[in-house]
Amino acid sequence: MTRVGILGGGQLCRMLALAGYPLGLHVRAFDPTEHSCCDGLLDRHRGDYGDRAALERFVRDLDVVTYEFENVPADCITILEQHVPVYPPRAALHTAQERLREKRFFAGLDIPTAPFAAVDSRPDLDAAVAEIGLPAVLKTRRFGYDGKGQALLKTPADLDVAWAELGAVPLILEGFVSFDRELSVVAARSRSGELAVYPLVENHHRDGILRRTLAPAPGISPALANAAEDYARRVLEALDYVGVLAIELFQKGEILLANEMAPRVHNSGHWSIDGAVTSQFENHLRAILGLPLGDTRPVGHSVMVNLIGGRPDRSALLAVPGLHLHDYDKAPRPGRKIGHVTVCGTERWQVNAALEQVGQLISEHEA
Amino acid sequence: MTRVGILGGGQLCRMLALAGYPLGLHVRAFDPTEHSCCDGLLDRHRGDYGDRAALERFVRDLDVVTYEFENVPADCITILEQHVPVYPPRAALHTAQERLREKRFFAGLDIPTAPFAAVDSRPDLDAAVAEIGLPAVLKTRRFGYDGKGQALLKTPADLDVAWAELGAVPLILEGFVSFDRELSVVAARSRSGELAVYPLVENHHRDGILRRTLAPAPGISPALANAAEDYARRVLEALDYVGVLAIELFQKGEILLANEMAPRVHNSGHWSIDGAVTSQFENHLRAILGLPLGDTRPVGHSVMVNLIGGRPDRSALLAVPGLHLHDYDKAPRPGRKIGHVTVCGTERWQVNAALEQVGQLISEHEA
Repeated sequence: MTRVGILGGGQLCRMLALAGYPLGLHVRAFDPTEHSCCDGLLDRHRGDYGDRAALERFVRDLDVVTYEFENVPADCITILEQHVPVYPPRAALHTAQERLREKRFFAGLDIPTAPFAAVDSRPDLDAAVAEIGLPAVLKTRRFGYDGKGQALLKTPADLDVAWAELGAVPLILEGFVSFDRELSVVAARSRSGELAVYPLVENHHRDGILRRTLAPAPGISPALANAAEDYARRVLEALDYVGVLAIELFQKGEILLANEMAPRVHNSGHWSIDGAVTSQFENHLRAILGLPLGDTRPVGHSVMVNLIGGRPDRSALLAVPGLHLHDYDKAPRPGRKIGHVTVCGTERWQVNAALEQVGQLISEHEA
Repeated sequence: MTRVGILGGGQLCRMLALAGYPLGLHVRAFDPTEHSCCDGLLDRHRGDYGDRAALERFVRDLDVVTYEFENVPADCITILEQHVPVYPPRAALHTAQERLREKRFFAGLDIPTAPFAAVDSRPDLDAAVAEIGLPAVLKTRRFGYDGKGQALLKTPADLDVAWAELGAVPLILEGFVSFDRELSVVAARSRSGELAVYPLVENHHRDGILRRTLAPAPGISPALANAAEDYARRVLEALDYVGVLAIELFQKGEILLANEMAPRVHNSGHWSIDGAVTSQFENHLRAILGLPLGDTRPVGHSVMVNLIGGRPDRSALLAVPGLHLHDYDKAPRPGRKIGHVTVCGTERWQVNAALEQVGQLISEHEA
């Protein structure tokens, strides 16, 4: 019997568990919240990530531990690693938890990024703007997600406002890239070193939150596909990575710029549950258990659409041809991801026609 | 919040639950056994099917109840129906629980069957053999599954032996059909009357246990496909059926003979998890909740292979291209289904090549 522990009891944990059961795995989650959307479908331990005794109860008889979010405290990993392997490895977490470190890591692997500079003081900010120019984006180095902790600087007048808002913590200034589109590459590397890379996908954000993913991304040249696979390989091998990792990229012409990475299963990989031979969730589990990785090829065309803030009528959604519903069983509130749908078809026009229907159903409920 | 109750906590319940979570459903099972392969992944109530108090605790706040086996006691359904709808409907259970009734039901719908006769006494058996001829199969009318409760009669000398073995209960004699192959059709009908039929599949049994299903069945003429769909429609509509139902058929030339039906998700429909747009498990849930049914079309070619008695090496199985593992988390013992694999591919030769590998891995462990 193989037992997998997951830190975090959100939708990524939920989808990992649902991918793990057909493999015969037992799944246990650790999460501090009163209610988790995984309650009822796995064994959940409630506890604080700093609670050594609770973590030691959680880890007892587990074979491996993984996590669904990148802000896991280092001390928590240290406690767990005394008992079982924890994947993805600490180095990936360390790198991805801090934007400056992350950008330097990409640069060190000759992976292009937007220009960037460290900002630890108000004079640093002036110097960085002088070097990089405007527009630029000022970001907290840690704990940013879904567009939070960021300010767009368009004119010199924006600097004081942004500094007042964000300046209490270490920052990074990044040159604003007038990119053509946002892409991402999701890849898995197993304990044996085996690598599997999903095709590039195209991501559409609004208000800093991912709304749609087109998989595979249309109109990708072989050169671009090769570059993405090559960058993924460099990142995974440099970190001696184990598990699934996502790299968010900007495309500008035939250039890919790495924006950030997530050392975990990723929202832009959700399409793979229905649209690829093997889902990112199954491949993450295979990777951390040292099992052979599954085929990452797409099956036709897919579009993943997040359900945000509100829950459209289930019956109306399920009437859409080729639609697969993934309800996370979470109470709706503004800006909260409470599920996603993936529309699949053998032809892109079929998918687009179905998306028209989905768009109408969602716009009535989105918040 | 929608809550579904399932009678029986075996692998069919397990796969129903795994199909239900993405739809946002809560799932509760009722099962008398000490250990269920669903424990840990759903809320399981332990109790006897005759225990009214336990059933009433189970049914509290459920929206609908279904079952994973056809020998549910009628009294159990009666108790539950006082609180919530129970699907598939009682008439289907009543018909499928008794082979003579079932055969008469098919005949009443002008669906061809093998010749059959009721056998309630030793003289009845002689009369039935005189009418139908030999070879023939003597079967208990109730509680037969996986080839149990059956005797093949080849010569008059076999009659006494078979009677001694089976004669204590009501029997049916069926003419032995020298069929070309065994097929089945799985279909769903929703509370709204909507119908969805999966393509005919080809089933291979050994020792009375299903070993493999080829989906779709190769070499099906349009006439045969139409006949199967038509028979499924007649059966579902005659029973005012709600849920998924399987009809096992013999093919002889261009004739389909109905052998038996199962008023539930069925082993010969397991391929649909990986090989069809919508799985039989999801469609069963959609049907009993009155949601629109999903597309039953196959995605390429699939072969489902049961894992029986022994558990092949997980890593070796997962290395087979296009293979999807479904481990039921059951302890192996001879003749017990402990999982299945489905091998999918866009071309049949790919699937066949992968099957060669699967066959070798399984033969080392099968019992």
